[in-house]
Amino acid sequence: MALRCKVILQSMKRGAVTSPSVCCSTTTHPRNSQWATFTNSAHPTVTTSKGTSNPSSNIVPRTSGAGYSCYVPARHISQSSTRMAPGTTTKPKLVAVEESRRFMIDCFTAANTPKENAVAMADLLIAADQRGHFSHGMNRLEMYINDLLKNSTDGYAVPKILKETPATAWVDGLNGLGAVVGNFCMDLAIQKAKQVGVGWVCAKGSNHYGIAGWYSLQAMKEGLIGISMTNTSPLMAPTRSKEAALGTNPIAVGAPAETEGFLLDMATTAVAVGKIEIQRRKGEPLPHGWAQDPEGNETTDPELAFKTGCLCPLGGSEITSGYKGYGLGAVVDILSGVLAGANYSTKVRKWTHAGADTHADLGQVFIAVNPDCFAPGFEGRLEDLHARLHGLAPTDPKKPVLIPGEKERLNIEAVKKAGGIQYLENQLNTCASLAERLKIQPMRFL
Amino acid sequence: MALRCKVILQSMKRGAVTSPSVCCSTTTHPRNSQWATFTNSAHPTVTTSKGTSNPSSNIVPRTSGAGYSCYVPARHISQSSTRMAPGTTTKPKLVAVEESRRFMIDCFTAANTPKENAVAMADLLIAADQRGHFSHGMNRLEMYINDLLKNSTDGYAVPKILKETPATAWVDGLNGLGAVVGNFCMDLAIQKAKQVGVGWVCAKGSNHYGIAGWYSLQAMKEGLIGISMTNTSPLMAPTRSKEAALGTNPIAVGAPAETEGFLLDMATTAVAVGKIEIQRRKGEPLPHGWAQDPEGNETTDPELAFKTGCLCPLGGSEITSGYKGYGLGAVVDILSGVLAGANYSTKVRKWTHAGADTHADLGQVFIAVNPDCFAPGFEGRLEDLHARLHGLAPTDPKKPVLIPGEKERLNIEAVKKAGGIQYLENQLNTCASLAERLKIQPMRFL
Repeated sequence: MALRCKVILQSMKRGAVTSPSVCCSTTTHPRNSQWATFTNSAHPTVTTSKGTSNPSSNIVPRTSGAGYSCYVPARHISQSSTRMAPGTTTKPKLVAVEESRRFMIDCFTAANTPKENAVAMADLLIAADQRGHFSHGMNRLEMYINDLLKNSTDGYAVPKILKETPATAWVDGLNGLGAVVGNFCMDLAIQKAKQVGVGWVCAKGSNHYGIAGWYSLQAMKEGLIGISMTNTSPLMAPTRSKEAALGTNPIAVGAPAETEGFLLDMATTAVAVGKIEIQRRKGEPLPHGWAQDPEGNETTDPELAFKTGCLCPLGGSEITSGYKGYGLGAVVDILSGVLAGANYSTKVRKWTHAGADTHADLGQVFIAVNPDCFAPGFEGRLEDLHARLHGLAPTDPKKPVLIPGEKERLNIEAVKKAGGIQYLENQLNTCASLAERLKIQPMRFL
Repeated sequence: MALRCKVILQSMKRGAVTSPSVCCSTTTHPRNSQWATFTNSAHPTVTTSKGTSNPSSNIVPRTSGAGYSCYVPARHISQSSTRMAPGTTTKPKLVAVEESRRFMIDCFTAANTPKENAVAMADLLIAADQRGHFSHGMNRLEMYINDLLKNSTDGYAVPKILKETPATAWVDGLNGLGAVVGNFCMDLAIQKAKQVGVGWVCAKGSNHYGIAGWYSLQAMKEGLIGISMTNTSPLMAPTRSKEAALGTNPIAVGAPAETEGFLLDMATTAVAVGKIEIQRRKGEPLPHGWAQDPEGNETTDPELAFKTGCLCPLGGSEITSGYKGYGLGAVVDILSGVLAGANYSTKVRKWTHAGADTHADLGQVFIAVNPDCFAPGFEGRLEDLHARLHGLAPTDPKKPVLIPGEKERLNIEAVKKAGGIQYLENQLNTCASLAERLKIQPMRFL
């Protein structure tokens, strides 16, 4: 018998603290799950030198239906697919990056979190917003805060090394905040890579750790290759299955080059659920290979796909090699959840907007590799590879071949030029509510 | 200006030594490339307890258009897609595994290769045939032999460690045979993993190393997680490009479980070129997302796709997240070719049936990880993950959810039951020609 995800799309109610203005999707064991998504109107926009832009600008929101992933580089979304939905309220306000960061730090410190850990989380979230991964930035703040207030995450936790070799460490995150656990582990991996060439650190007892690429970036800053993966709540149906049993399970691989580095940060599902929601709002059919219907067959009906709540793995259906995406999602779970002794597959809890009642116990892996241990001149060769890729004749002359990580750098530049990040009204409402609830200084606008 | 691959389909001529009965595809820099493929009729068949089967049986040939990959588990191919093409000659003969191995060892030793290295290559190729990866087994023998006879590969080469730490090694394969370099490197990675938890070994100066999964299997036998990747001749068009610039660049990840292990062995292209050839022979359109036309657009025309010679990355076109497959293919090239200081991207030579005039200088990476360095009980948890996946409600009750590596085990069992491997006539002709040319004992049949 097929038991699938029940979808709950939470309506957006301005000013209602407990009715989320952003509701992030989660699922858990398909036998008892919810699948809610935040809506497009929650996305920030960015003011560019040409004026205010909305998500149809070059700063494109990445929508997420999962605890993770949703790496949807703007370059891969046509403008039409990111048009604002009819009736969406958009009165964006520009917020200086430092003010956004201050606000997030204040929120965390008011929610059972010491300053140092609050800073770690704020830096993670602001980086996501700056890079254009809006779904993983301020958009998630309320969820983290609710987890802290419900004590399902321990803001004070200090990760502990349980077992160690010169090249490895097994860490217990002790239910700490994702960035706290993640930074601890990647720092350790970096130290080990500097000493013996490779650091391979696995964490159990962790929580949602934001964009996977954040941890790769830490290694890249040190001239190292950085890899990170995490398991997440089930949302992907393995090939041939009617049911979700793996998360969007992202993989991030970053490597430093002479000028700009390479950074792949991708979910192992075909797309994020947010992209299905966009098609649904537009009333347009889904491309093949995005999602399944209740019987486990591929569907192009966005309404049905949204209600069913089972994403296809990368590659789509079996005939287009979806079993490879399934295999990759399983690899992520094995190297993170299974190896770390954390939850995995259908054992991973749901994560709702309102917070969770149980610990997540996510598994994560952080790998740093020192290129100096191999052929000298790594960064120059990577630069040359990038040049070869950039030099390829494009199918559409207006759309040159890009390097993974390139679009994110353009987003960062746009934020700099704009002088800040422009958040949409719903996000601002959520922030105002948080400020009132946590008795902190509301966010100031430029 | 777009400069694309020129496709040369070499015709099959029985008994013609220099006209290949199997012609493996290769491409090199798209500005001057050839793309030839072996044909379906070159595939061996297996006799099961129910009698002789052809590739439409449960033993399904993996067709390859690249130096690599083409991991197309039989479970993912409908029977109709593997039907023999009209006019294909099939008079298969059963060959005992040991005799097939003996024959391959004799071929290598007669072609400037010492016994030990000949055994390494034979074991690799026979494992591919046993596992159902027929494109990477006996099917490739003549190409290796031609390379050896032309001295473009050095059968006597002994790989050399150029740089080493407790967890890493940089190896020069010195243009040795792929299995010789690969086994040397994975052995080293295993030793290091046993000592410090992780072994990360990169090789330059290598050659075609067969199925990537072979090296993961070596680690799994030691209770370790095994990962291997190699770059290959360009065949995949990066997202937005008209031209091929990355190979099929496979990734293999294996992990031991309490009973049967997990082994993902996949190309980062959507499909192998052999699958396009099958559609072409059947006169049926391609599914979306397999291949591009000369202008870089997705095509469903198998003839056009075959002539164009640019595979889509895993994920297909941009709208179905092909940029993720592109990113993964680039990651493989970075971790193998770029890191090792070998050739990469469009620097990788073509590899033709007739042998190559230049050294391949492929880059490869071999990683072993000791699960004992992390949470105790890894194999039990992986067993449980497998059980969860097996227990999922299938879309089609006749097609249960499978674990990566499961179909290959079924192939091995079928070979055991049959008492040998059944090779098709064209393969047997090639072997007879090789025996005559190399003055060795011809292959005996059961």
